[in-house]
Amino acid sequence: MSGLADYPRNMGGLAAVIDALAVRYGNRFSTSAALRDQHGHTTTSLLNQPPDGVMFATSTEEVSDVVALCAEYRVPVIPFGTGTSLEGHVNAPQGGISLDLSRMDRVLEINPSDLDCTVEPGVTRKRLNETLRDTGLFFPVDPGADASIGGMVATRASGTNAVRYGTMKDLVLALTVVTADGRIVHTGSRAKKSSTGYDLTRLFVGSEGTLGVVTGVTLKLFGIPEEIAGGVCSFPTVEAACDAVIMTIQTGIPVARIELLDELQVRACNAYSKLSLPEMPTLFVEFHGTAAGVAEQAEIFGVIATENGAEPFVWATRPEERTRLWQARHDAHWASTAMMSGRKGISTDVCVPISRLAECVAETQRDIVETGLTVPIVGHVGDGNFHCLVFANPADPAESAKADAFVERLAWRALDMGGTCSGEHGVGQGKMKFLQREHGAGLDLMRSVKRALDPNNIMNPGKIFAL
Amino acid sequence: MSGLADYPRNMGGLAAVIDALAVRYGNRFSTSAALRDQHGHTTTSLLNQPPDGVMFATSTEEVSDVVALCAEYRVPVIPFGTGTSLEGHVNAPQGGISLDLSRMDRVLEINPSDLDCTVEPGVTRKRLNETLRDTGLFFPVDPGADASIGGMVATRASGTNAVRYGTMKDLVLALTVVTADGRIVHTGSRAKKSSTGYDLTRLFVGSEGTLGVVTGVTLKLFGIPEEIAGGVCSFPTVEAACDAVIMTIQTGIPVARIELLDELQVRACNAYSKLSLPEMPTLFVEFHGTAAGVAEQAEIFGVIATENGAEPFVWATRPEERTRLWQARHDAHWASTAMMSGRKGISTDVCVPISRLAECVAETQRDIVETGLTVPIVGHVGDGNFHCLVFANPADPAESAKADAFVERLAWRALDMGGTCSGEHGVGQGKMKFLQREHGAGLDLMRSVKRALDPNNIMNPGKIFAL
Repeated sequence: MSGLADYPRNMGGLAAVIDALAVRYGNRFSTSAALRDQHGHTTTSLLNQPPDGVMFATSTEEVSDVVALCAEYRVPVIPFGTGTSLEGHVNAPQGGISLDLSRMDRVLEINPSDLDCTVEPGVTRKRLNETLRDTGLFFPVDPGADASIGGMVATRASGTNAVRYGTMKDLVLALTVVTADGRIVHTGSRAKKSSTGYDLTRLFVGSEGTLGVVTGVTLKLFGIPEEIAGGVCSFPTVEAACDAVIMTIQTGIPVARIELLDELQVRACNAYSKLSLPEMPTLFVEFHGTAAGVAEQAEIFGVIATENGAEPFVWATRPEERTRLWQARHDAHWASTAMMSGRKGISTDVCVPISRLAECVAETQRDIVETGLTVPIVGHVGDGNFHCLVFANPADPAESAKADAFVERLAWRALDMGGTCSGEHGVGQGKMKFLQREHGAGLDLMRSVKRALDPNNIMNPGKIFAL
Repeated sequence: MSGLADYPRNMGGLAAVIDALAVRYGNRFSTSAALRDQHGHTTTSLLNQPPDGVMFATSTEEVSDVVALCAEYRVPVIPFGTGTSLEGHVNAPQGGISLDLSRMDRVLEINPSDLDCTVEPGVTRKRLNETLRDTGLFFPVDPGADASIGGMVATRASGTNAVRYGTMKDLVLALTVVTADGRIVHTGSRAKKSSTGYDLTRLFVGSEGTLGVVTGVTLKLFGIPEEIAGGVCSFPTVEAACDAVIMTIQTGIPVARIELLDELQVRACNAYSKLSLPEMPTLFVEFHGTAAGVAEQAEIFGVIATENGAEPFVWATRPEERTRLWQARHDAHWASTAMMSGRKGISTDVCVPISRLAECVAETQRDIVETGLTVPIVGHVGDGNFHCLVFANPADPAESAKADAFVERLAWRALDMGGTCSGEHGVGQGKMKFLQREHGAGLDLMRSVKRALDPNNIMNPGKIFAL
């Protein structure tokens, strides 16, 4: 149980909770080492910190029961969806119970006339869209992984479509939440807007399980566009590509996706996904709308790209070509990993005002050259958001230190440019050190809210805020 | 000082604060009865409850100083913008200091490349748009009144354009806030998205001055559309009009405005704004986009309207015709008031899932007929949101009671249909009684947040929550 030694644990409380859960829930509660390890895993360079037990909940009432029990004994509760978070969100630095919500995976209600649906938190985004397909509707938020909707609420997820459709902040209408004392609370409603009191829905979106457990989610949906078109476009430099993005957004083209891959990332994708794109900074672009609307958007974008020195736009006219391109984009992480012979990279993201995007990416590229690390860049650049996948040999302490220092410099650079240290991955354990600088006195307000809603600090302790 | 007698006041603290403010700020602080009355006014049937003094602040630092002083003596602080709120938000039920922010009226920064701007809270929405005009940008939120941006943040305002561009919840990027102890806090950033901690920005949006004073606002802006077109369309019934709205939204037409006026409201507008519309339920519609895009949207809408039994769509092709129509829409409140020979109506609003809109409006119309009151209906129906202006003779207690009972029934009706008791006016004092039913245990969570951020209950006490 690496990494746990430093933290005090409530051994008496833990024993009582473990006994009670075993009695109440039988084999839906487990203390097996393999399960615990799997539930404390991280996809980062952070150490694994497994929980003391894993509970598979199947209803809001069960979640309420488990949380109330943990509250009674002051035992930490760590909500768990698919475990794809990137900043150590599911680690258990004080031990406690991992509350696995993956079996709460029912799509409860689809309301085509209101363009909304209500799901349990364990439904993954891909399964939701499969379920929706026959209704002609879709849910656009697509973080790379097939994350659970509950986890996406917790980290305020976004992805390639956010530039057009918004992030989880914009697309969650209502939540069912179990609070730190086991109460079941419904926030929001299916009405499209309301002015009645504090926005509890958005207080829970992005709270990373530190204020309660999300057990139900009502989401806005969209009609599948009549026409989808897109393609790729190479640029001489990342600055030129970023400038094209900035002009596209300023012109008000309702681009559905506009993604940057730098030279290195294109090389990795060519090899992994069997593409033959020029190894140059490249934009992947997609337009949604009516046939005429899409044609018009594409034409205006073409002019902007050419003005910024782009090679001719390569259209993916057939759906299967388009799918292949976007699959390659979504596989960028695995392409880079393959390029590095399976070595695990540190995935980090920042977001800046779009006017600073070209400058931020260019400075980051210079930093990469100076540092000598291998770091492909890929980004949801329409939002000013980009990702670095930082490769360092974990067996080489000097290289690991270099990688950590690079990740730190990237965060400070984004903050210096009026941005944020994470556009979509969240804070977890990995980005805590940047929050004082990013939020100043706001961090104290957040702490006040945390203390008010979770006075005994049992909800995912040690995330967002230091222990 | 009507309505104040029932509430205990901190007379010693008030005296100390009044003395200190007079010394520190000279004639920018006043206890004149006329000013106090003006600052405690309401536009509803609620009694006026004037504050004990009015402070005209000119900077965030001054606001911090005033709030810290009031905190020291536990004296209420009531933030004041333009006084156009509709549910008694600026009343001072416990007395205290009205903090008038109208002199903090500078547009601090416009960033055309990021499509954002930062303003002081006293800037009104019309002045902001006048200032923006030369940049080709605009800010779309338009509650009827020329409200201050700070007040619009406080009540989570929206209006006719919200169906396309969103409400204040969606369009505030960052805030400067003075908290209940006088601390200056910056929330959010100019980055388009972030996943770093609790969403303090949206916690303050809609908090009605009960958590702190907004002293700076960073807003998203939009490019003025290349083409704007619109017109009006009469329907045989409100149900038919609502059905056309529902189909328009479901079809995904990015309609910029779609407003319902019922027969009575059309009659009032015809008389007041010298129009000659058929006295039938009418939709005012506007499309924004490129020339081709607008033409396409209008064509699809025309088909939907005809399918729902509409009279032929009447286009307002010339800008001045369009302006005249929308001015009439914005003057609907005054048109109704004029129709009632200057009598003041009670303005109330609710919002329901759009699938329940036709039913909710129709039931409300039946209720109006049964009650025998005069109540024009007008609504931002693309959001499922509509307003009733309820006319009753305040000198006739029976009629006033009838009006109050109608407003109550309307709120319960919306809640029964899965909606909210206010889509955009807010809670203030007028809608407090509905919150337990609307939010249940969520209301306790809101109270916990309030206690955490304002432990002495000095920030606009007696609003949202009972005293």
